[in-house]
Amino acid sequence: MDNQQLQGLVEQMTLEEKIAQLLQLTAHFHEGTDNKGQVTGPMEEMGITEGVVTASGSILGLSGAQAVIDVQQAYLSKSRLGIPLLFMADVIHGFKTIFPIPLAIGCSWDMELAEKSAEIAAKESAVSGIHVTFAPMVDLVRDPRWGRVMETTGEDPYLNSLFARAFVRGYQGDNLKENPDRLAACVKHFAAYGAPEGGRDYNTVNMSERNLREQYLPAYKAALDEGCEMVMTSFNTVDGIPATGNEKLTRGILRDEWGFDGVVISDWASIREMIAHGAAEDDCEAAYRAIRAGVDIEMMTPCYVNQLPKLIESGRVDEALIDEAVLRILRLKDKLGLFENPLRAADPEREREVVFCEEHRNVSHELASKSSVLLKNNGILPLGPDANVALIGPFAQSNDILGWWSCVGAKEDAVQLGTSLQERLSGGKLAISEGCGIDSISQEQIHAALETARSADVIVLALGEESAMSGEGGSRTNIRLPEAQLELVKQLKTLGKPLAAVIFNGRPLDLHGIFEEADAVLEAWFPGSEGGAAIADILVGRVNPSARLTMSFPQSVGQVPVYYNHYNTGRPMNPQKTEERYVSKYIDSPNDPLLPFGFGLSYTTFEYSDLTISGHEMKAEEQLTVQVKVTNTGSREGVETVQLYIRDVAGEVVRPMRELKGFEKLLLAPGETGTATFTITEELLRYHHSDLSFTSDPGTFQVFVGSNSRDTLEQSFKLV
Amino acid sequence: MDNQQLQGLVEQMTLEEKIAQLLQLTAHFHEGTDNKGQVTGPMEEMGITEGVVTASGSILGLSGAQAVIDVQQAYLSKSRLGIPLLFMADVIHGFKTIFPIPLAIGCSWDMELAEKSAEIAAKESAVSGIHVTFAPMVDLVRDPRWGRVMETTGEDPYLNSLFARAFVRGYQGDNLKENPDRLAACVKHFAAYGAPEGGRDYNTVNMSERNLREQYLPAYKAALDEGCEMVMTSFNTVDGIPATGNEKLTRGILRDEWGFDGVVISDWASIREMIAHGAAEDDCEAAYRAIRAGVDIEMMTPCYVNQLPKLIESGRVDEALIDEAVLRILRLKDKLGLFENPLRAADPEREREVVFCEEHRNVSHELASKSSVLLKNNGILPLGPDANVALIGPFAQSNDILGWWSCVGAKEDAVQLGTSLQERLSGGKLAISEGCGIDSISQEQIHAALETARSADVIVLALGEESAMSGEGGSRTNIRLPEAQLELVKQLKTLGKPLAAVIFNGRPLDLHGIFEEADAVLEAWFPGSEGGAAIADILVGRVNPSARLTMSFPQSVGQVPVYYNHYNTGRPMNPQKTEERYVSKYIDSPNDPLLPFGFGLSYTTFEYSDLTISGHEMKAEEQLTVQVKVTNTGSREGVETVQLYIRDVAGEVVRPMRELKGFEKLLLAPGETGTATFTITEELLRYHHSDLSFTSDPGTFQVFVGSNSRDTLEQSFKLV
Repeated sequence: MDNQQLQGLVEQMTLEEKIAQLLQLTAHFHEGTDNKGQVTGPMEEMGITEGVVTASGSILGLSGAQAVIDVQQAYLSKSRLGIPLLFMADVIHGFKTIFPIPLAIGCSWDMELAEKSAEIAAKESAVSGIHVTFAPMVDLVRDPRWGRVMETTGEDPYLNSLFARAFVRGYQGDNLKENPDRLAACVKHFAAYGAPEGGRDYNTVNMSERNLREQYLPAYKAALDEGCEMVMTSFNTVDGIPATGNEKLTRGILRDEWGFDGVVISDWASIREMIAHGAAEDDCEAAYRAIRAGVDIEMMTPCYVNQLPKLIESGRVDEALIDEAVLRILRLKDKLGLFENPLRAADPEREREVVFCEEHRNVSHELASKSSVLLKNNGILPLGPDANVALIGPFAQSNDILGWWSCVGAKEDAVQLGTSLQERLSGGKLAISEGCGIDSISQEQIHAALETARSADVIVLALGEESAMSGEGGSRTNIRLPEAQLELVKQLKTLGKPLAAVIFNGRPLDLHGIFEEADAVLEAWFPGSEGGAAIADILVGRVNPSARLTMSFPQSVGQVPVYYNHYNTGRPMNPQKTEERYVSKYIDSPNDPLLPFGFGLSYTTFEYSDLTISGHEMKAEEQLTVQVKVTNTGSREGVETVQLYIRDVAGEVVRPMRELKGFEKLLLAPGETGTATFTITEELLRYHHSDLSFTSDPGTFQVFVGSNSRDTLEQSFKLV
Repeated sequence: MDNQQLQGLVEQMTLEEKIAQLLQLTAHFHEGTDNKGQVTGPMEEMGITEGVVTASGSILGLSGAQAVIDVQQAYLSKSRLGIPLLFMADVIHGFKTIFPIPLAIGCSWDMELAEKSAEIAAKESAVSGIHVTFAPMVDLVRDPRWGRVMETTGEDPYLNSLFARAFVRGYQGDNLKENPDRLAACVKHFAAYGAPEGGRDYNTVNMSERNLREQYLPAYKAALDEGCEMVMTSFNTVDGIPATGNEKLTRGILRDEWGFDGVVISDWASIREMIAHGAAEDDCEAAYRAIRAGVDIEMMTPCYVNQLPKLIESGRVDEALIDEAVLRILRLKDKLGLFENPLRAADPEREREVVFCEEHRNVSHELASKSSVLLKNNGILPLGPDANVALIGPFAQSNDILGWWSCVGAKEDAVQLGTSLQERLSGGKLAISEGCGIDSISQEQIHAALETARSADVIVLALGEESAMSGEGGSRTNIRLPEAQLELVKQLKTLGKPLAAVIFNGRPLDLHGIFEEADAVLEAWFPGSEGGAAIADILVGRVNPSARLTMSFPQSVGQVPVYYNHYNTGRPMNPQKTEERYVSKYIDSPNDPLLPFGFGLSYTTFEYSDLTISGHEMKAEEQLTVQVKVTNTGSREGVETVQLYIRDVAGEVVRPMRELKGFEKLLLAPGETGTATFTITEELLRYHHSDLSFTSDPGTFQVFVGSNSRDTLEQSFKLV
């Protein structure tokens, strides 16, 4: 339908019908309309009637082709105007084929695979009846205490923006109407949800607008520039006003400034939560603030349906605001082709073929092997084909490797590390022992682990956090491995055998207690459905690891936040004079993280040389070429991710020590030398000034190219 | 002199003479003018000549009446226009009579004694030749990792503002010219120096302007409202621009908006440090930004003297800016009476009488006993007069109890706890053992400590941080007691004897490892010159402790920042349902601190009852009276600090869960009931809205009255 037809439809709707479009409920409200007893309680609690439920515009969390078809058909049978329901769900890192957690995907630095993972997630979801996913989550993060760091791609605005675009492309494709196997994407959480104080989920966010624009907004904007259809508001306040009722943010920046004309949805209950925030005394004020801010759909609370009629009647809210919101929702339904085909891709038969098919699992496998980061290796990895291995630890045979938000993924479908390692050690031996629980250890477990290890040549420890220790609501004040696991490490160290550690987890950890103790450390993250297979591939060397951290690993929680693109301060520590007192440092810890952004090892080694720049002065309309030679100095083929960082030496406001501005992957055979080439344009040098203008300044810039954000070669130029 | 005369003087000055007034150097530059060899190096390093040194307008850090007289007379003998030197110094918590650290003074909630301490510090300094102190430091703090929390009065803007005023009154008195025994005060560090990221000194500060105005600026403003003569800029950036070159901050808010017409001084080298910050490429740009921002005096770097002439010649800086700055400096010199009496109170004879006199030490003793906070007591304190005590720990006989920034205070003058406790246990016994060092412990020490403790009835542990573990440049990532001391606690616990701990330190610590283990815990802070005596008075019950924390004590560093006046979030944890996942909490720690703001015990107990409010509605021009009854239910006289908190239930921006709005001290005999009375006016209800307006909103307010920020009775009212 064109806009005029959609407008016409809005005009035919009653106020009640319009407002019902703005309500999103979980499926059980609808299923309950066939079985009133089940939902009377929740409906009464919300103060809504069956009529409202019947007319509500979208559904959250229902999947399964037949179930969706049933609900959609029942709904349409009662719909006066034949407006179909929208089905939305949290498809975050896969639907049933679960991919590595987004933080791990981030570490792949691989936009094509990231896009592919979203495309697969979309396809599995679409045939299961879903139309919209609440993804990608592109919140920039700097605090590993926050459990939800697992759901982002990390601490860098540039990289997050690339991933935001890749995910949106993967979910949406080119044309939602023509491609029913795609989903509309919903970028979240607008804005700055990733910066809760103290790393405590939902907590206060405090930053200047300039900082918000410079660091936090770019990834949301990138998703929208890629055509993302929806935006979800965040739970937090932004400069004191909840993001769900923040007129400046959603109407001002998002709609007026960026021209976003798609649907804005609240997060779960976040309109009513304005009362708890202390930004509204009651539902009426909450509804008022949200609709004024331009939030179209209210998820799971009834402020709109119960309060908007009064607000319109009293004249405080103009009905035009409602019409706008409804029009946006109808337009999305139309874009998805629902008016023509309300069942869209929902198809029980295709569902059986497509969901969790081998092809999809293979992609998950590949992505997992490209997401696991080798953090340390003194040569004991990869294991030889005839190695005699003791695999010990709570993750040796664990299925809890999908990570939080794994949609309809089933743990029992996850490939265990023990199983896969067994398969790959055809010439060797593998003995397995649990060693300890996630956070419990017994004398019997220790005894058994020591016995198992004694007869092996090398110990592989499989340690980590259970998935509930990260994810939404999973914030920790202690980011070390649980005590029981550290005790297991101590016990096994007494044997004096080579020890490799594989860590399964959802956040950067303080790795003290394992990092020094182990001869090799592989960060597996939560690697998804095929996780065990992918990790085993790396352990035995079938795959040469190539992933790079996208979030710094702190020395300790007392150092948080620590991130690579920080400012210099007026008193930077001189690394040659660490004893100086009056410099910006801790007296009991380095300033630098244990492992920096961009860091990751390979089974081969790379050497950088000959960093050149095509000139040392550049006018705004010119560009410079930066080149570096990279040689594979090891004995096997490997992929090196060559990273470009720039520093603006002096700005109107202070600028980060370095900022990622590009990267290039080189696949190099042993002895081969490749060249990475980057182009510097004036556009790369822009930043937000104190008046919020986004421009560059003439002056000196440093250029750093290297293997990670710490180890780089350097050049410089002047913008004149 | 009147303004016209001062203006006339400025007109007579050459540009070089004027710019030299803007330079502050340490004394050795001037002393060196009599002995060129000594300062040639530093002068060359700065690129300045002896002529510049000779003409520079102020001196930093020199004291001693005769030394100051000598330098002043030599200076004036070479001064073409007879403009005297200003002598400034860091007199922070006492000159030679050292008072408790400011964080401890904060815990006294005693403005009269705080004022008295500043008056004494002023008198000792003034007779020693000083004219200006770089105090009070009024930075609001929320992160105990930051070493400099010891120098503030805590986390509350209201209380910090009261202390800011008290200190300014104490230093300055009513009339600096008529009272040469007073000093000009210099409030610092403008602005928000107390909010460095990660608690790392000098690190980036990131907050919105609204938050800056609401929480951080009030205490600076309060000092100025009290007539504070000077302001020092801070080392940090404020929204990306170093505070020392921040036109919006110093010229905009400080001068234009608040009308401050006194002298603004940089912090040590902070003009040149703009280069390291990345806000200036060279000295010239740094000088340009600082003079534009309205910084009058440059401390210890030569950007002004070397660059301002060129900047004026080239027309980038108007000479009128220099004239303004010079006029402000001359006006301060005149206010101090230096034109009439350039030696002011400097007097070697009075210096001998006044400095560190008994009267002053008595006030320090009193303030220390009112600053030590009793954190826990299951009844073992106070010690009986005939107690058989083992005093064990590195602070048993330590003189390191003055704390950082103790000016010319001498550790060897500090009264040790062991000595004072011995004097007070006339009928009992005291045996002393070191037990361990600050962060080392040996088997011999443990053995000796156990031996000492075995023959005692009660163990008093004297533990803590050495003074260098806090203060400027003293940031820690680990805020627990050092491991050696925790080991000592473990060892002594094996004896099963009653155990009281006294903690000497400069920041709120994570007290795990001692708080549960001890039967009583007394937070002594760094109590100053008479510290041992004051603590001993409390231990034996000569003084009933009455102090209250002004900074929350966290459960762990992983919980930082934790402060009482936080926001509710949209998903506050229900204390009755701590197992709920999707609420703002940690999965491994309470949200609440171990000990809240306002907390402190007494040797008696108090009960609150009958909280009344004179009405439940209030118009803006009206006021309400809140009253509460407090009964001393214990067996000895004691002081209770009754605290009033208010919460604005819903605001245009979210409002803190509670904010301190008043307090009243009641001295109550056993069994006596007193009444605390508070007046609520509309002025108390104002806050900074999103448009930065400072107004109140109609609506519901909760009123909490109680013994600390957690344990309160409640009422409510509506502003209509």
